[in-house]
Amino acid sequence: MSSLSLSPLVLGFWRLKHWGYSPQQILAFVEQAVELGVTSMDHAMVYRSEAPFGEAMALKPSVRDQIQIITKCGIRPMGFGELGAQGVNHYDFSKAYTMQSVEASLRDLQTDRIDLLLLHRPDFLMDISEVAETFAQLNADGKVLHFGVSNFTPAQVEALQSALPDALVTNQVEFSPLNMAALSDGTFDQAQRLGMRPMLWSCLAGGRLFSPESERDKAVVAALQGVAQELGADSIEAVVYAWLLALPCNPYPILGTSKIARVADAVKALDIKLTREQWYRIWEASNGASVP
Amino acid sequence: MSSLSLSPLVLGFWRLKHWGYSPQQILAFVEQAVELGVTSMDHAMVYRSEAPFGEAMALKPSVRDQIQIITKCGIRPMGFGELGAQGVNHYDFSKAYTMQSVEASLRDLQTDRIDLLLLHRPDFLMDISEVAETFAQLNADGKVLHFGVSNFTPAQVEALQSALPDALVTNQVEFSPLNMAALSDGTFDQAQRLGMRPMLWSCLAGGRLFSPESERDKAVVAALQGVAQELGADSIEAVVYAWLLALPCNPYPILGTSKIARVADAVKALDIKLTREQWYRIWEASNGASVP
Amino acid sequence: MSSLSLSPLVLGFWRLKHWGYSPQQILAFVEQAVELGVTSMDHAMVYRSEAPFGEAMALKPSVRDQIQIITKCGIRPMGFGELGAQGVNHYDFSKAYTMQSVEASLRDLQTDRIDLLLLHRPDFLMDISEVAETFAQLNADGKVLHFGVSNFTPAQVEALQSALPDALVTNQVEFSPLNMAALSDGTFDQAQRLGMRPMLWSCLAGGRLFSPESERDKAVVAALQGVAQELGADSIEAVVYAWLLALPCNPYPILGTSKIARVADAVKALDIKLTREQWYRIWEASNGASVP
Repeated sequence: MSSLSLSPLVLGFWRLKHWGYSPQQILAFVEQAVELGVTSMDHAMVYRSEAPFGEAMALKPSVRDQIQIITKCGIRPMGFGELGAQGVNHYDFSKAYTMQSVEASLRDLQTDRIDLLLLHRPDFLMDISEVAETFAQLNADGKVLHFGVSNFTPAQVEALQSALPDALVTNQVEFSPLNMAALSDGTFDQAQRLGMRPMLWSCLAGGRLFSPESERDKAVVAALQGVAQELGADSIEAVVYAWLLALPCNPYPILGTSKIARVADAVKALDIKLTREQWYRIWEASNGASVP
Repeated sequence: MSSLSLSPLVLGFWRLKHWGYSPQQILAFVEQAVELGVTSMDHAMVYRSEAPFGEAMALKPSVRDQIQIITKCGIRPMGFGELGAQGVNHYDFSKAYTMQSVEASLRDLQTDRIDLLLLHRPDFLMDISEVAETFAQLNADGKVLHFGVSNFTPAQVEALQSALPDALVTNQVEFSPLNMAALSDGTFDQAQRLGMRPMLWSCLAGGRLFSPESERDKAVVAALQGVAQELGADSIEAVVYAWLLALPCNPYPILGTSKIARVADAVKALDIKLTREQWYRIWEASNGASVP
Repeated sequence: MSSLSLSPLVLGFWRLKHWGYSPQQILAFVEQAVELGVTSMDHAMVYRSEAPFGEAMALKPSVRDQIQIITKCGIRPMGFGELGAQGVNHYDFSKAYTMQSVEASLRDLQTDRIDLLLLHRPDFLMDISEVAETFAQLNADGKVLHFGVSNFTPAQVEALQSALPDALVTNQVEFSPLNMAALSDGTFDQAQRLGMRPMLWSCLAGGRLFSPESERDKAVVAALQGVAQELGADSIEAVVYAWLLALPCNPYPILGTSKIARVADAVKALDIKLTREQWYRIWEASNGASVP
């Protein structure tokens, strides 16, 4: 399998449908991001971001080779046409559904290959041999170059990995200064051990860091502001990304913004190095108590 | 080690003492079950099912070769004669006690071999080398052909397995639409990874599916009834077994019934294939919320 | 790596600063302990026990070869001079800090080598390759002979171990009849599997066994007293140590006392063998319910 090179920060298109961008605007945004060194683009079938993104890319096909396209499969929500559920929302890692989902993604993205395909959420009915067979075929067909998972527990990663000839590239999980579960539940320990760099979603806690509600939210924001001041950072956003990039599992934070100025701000985080004391000050504010 | 072939459904004799069956009736029940393809018989020293079962089998020794006998050791409850505890109930995986328990099982079952011996509940004092030595001797003596565990956590399975030359055959755990912990705590992930097919006890949640009490119980029963209707199944029981048999860890559900008609009903589950949507509809009713 | 031989019981110097012992008294205490067969001495940078201990050892340098010195690094509390934190208490497994901490320990202990160095509490920023490099250098320099960890989860142990050429010697964790978490959270299962004998701290639950408060405390003390009486043990303390030494992970209990008479009492535990029933009686008192 050829090697995959993702950018240190990843652009997330979860809410692309709500940005109100024309294809031209999407293309411009992507090209500006690429100039800033942000070349990896995170999608999912259920974001419904693939078709508008594909339309934009079709305006300038040469951009395709400058970016890495990540997308996800495995969820069947109600009201999603051919790929949705007739009844309750559910997950589906069957070979038939995955193949169908990848075909739809390729068509919508207007591309001949997905750089990285993730299983979106763990399907309790995941048959690891069937998934291995599906991945092998998608890879042999040149349709998907690399594979990973999302929101998997360490035990689920271990089970699936045991059936695969190649290493899963990533486990995309939720993580932010307001949601630090992956630090203690084994997710990041496993990631570092396997060299399986996680992608992180909801890094800004769904915007709660910009409109803190609870006392805890406010304490975390205050800690971030203190560190930002010490480092001369323009925004707490850059401090958050620097805090994430300090993790020894070498994660890829996903940026959820539609504003190129905020992408540029985030990129500054790559040059910010927190001291361990600063890192733990933010952790302590979120934890609500000092380390033992 | 010779290979072990269990039937897809297992007959459980937990409550045999309460069935009020004569040896002749037990024999008839077993022979009818065998005709239905249910050939694996689940016992335990503490069920006190071994002696009446052995008495029944002695009536027609040729049946022995048509069945697989599973039994369990390792519990010492108060009031169990030579194998019970003087003081508090406890567990005991010592070599001396296991050997003694197996001898008693062989004697009571009136057989020369146990097809599958399970450690009934995890003993905190389990010395994995001692257990390995015990298993090796029981196997060399031809008294026990295969080994497994019951109610073990993944970490306990991993510890014991690391000391054994042969794979543990099963981890017998509680699982039903009303108790789905094994789906998320790593038990089934480990089972699938190791190819260690679980046996499932209390699949009908101790009968609660037939006399639902809570709102959640009722929601699960309603979901089961809906699926039964869609599939033209005679009973929700068959749907429950089909729901279990759909799991990718390939479990062996244990039937707790004394009625051959209900065994026959359960066998029908082998021909029922739920859609993923139907499977998740039952899961969702139990979970109380849709998948994320 | 040369092999390390620890004594079955370990002397803990956590509260040495509060004992009010002169160097001569410390030396006498250590020599008496050595005569009782307790030769392993547990320190930590943050106990501030190293300097007074080193001063005592300097009075009679020949004692050094009769003992094994264990110490710990990785914590940076506020108010600890050169090794403390400017801001919040935090952990620090960086190479620079570990080297600095070990130098300070060697200087304070007035010795040329640490027999066993433990990472005191898990640092979320632990870079396993960096730690491996640090350990390799400390070992090559002859400054630290063996390595271990303390208060690590199984996933953290697994991650760090995966980067090291030699086995971690121990995971020092809290355990007592009033705190039995390590029995069920995988810690002891992993320890037995890896042959990584744990050290146990707070074995007497911080003295709560001698001044029980809750009903549960009292039930545990009553169970210990019952067993002590049955065994003709002088104290419940010896029963507690015998209860710990019965664990199949072969742990090293740490004694927190400053009284040589109590060390002698504890040593008697090595000759006490609890029955499984006695062991579970104490467990049941703490658990508040019988085994299932």
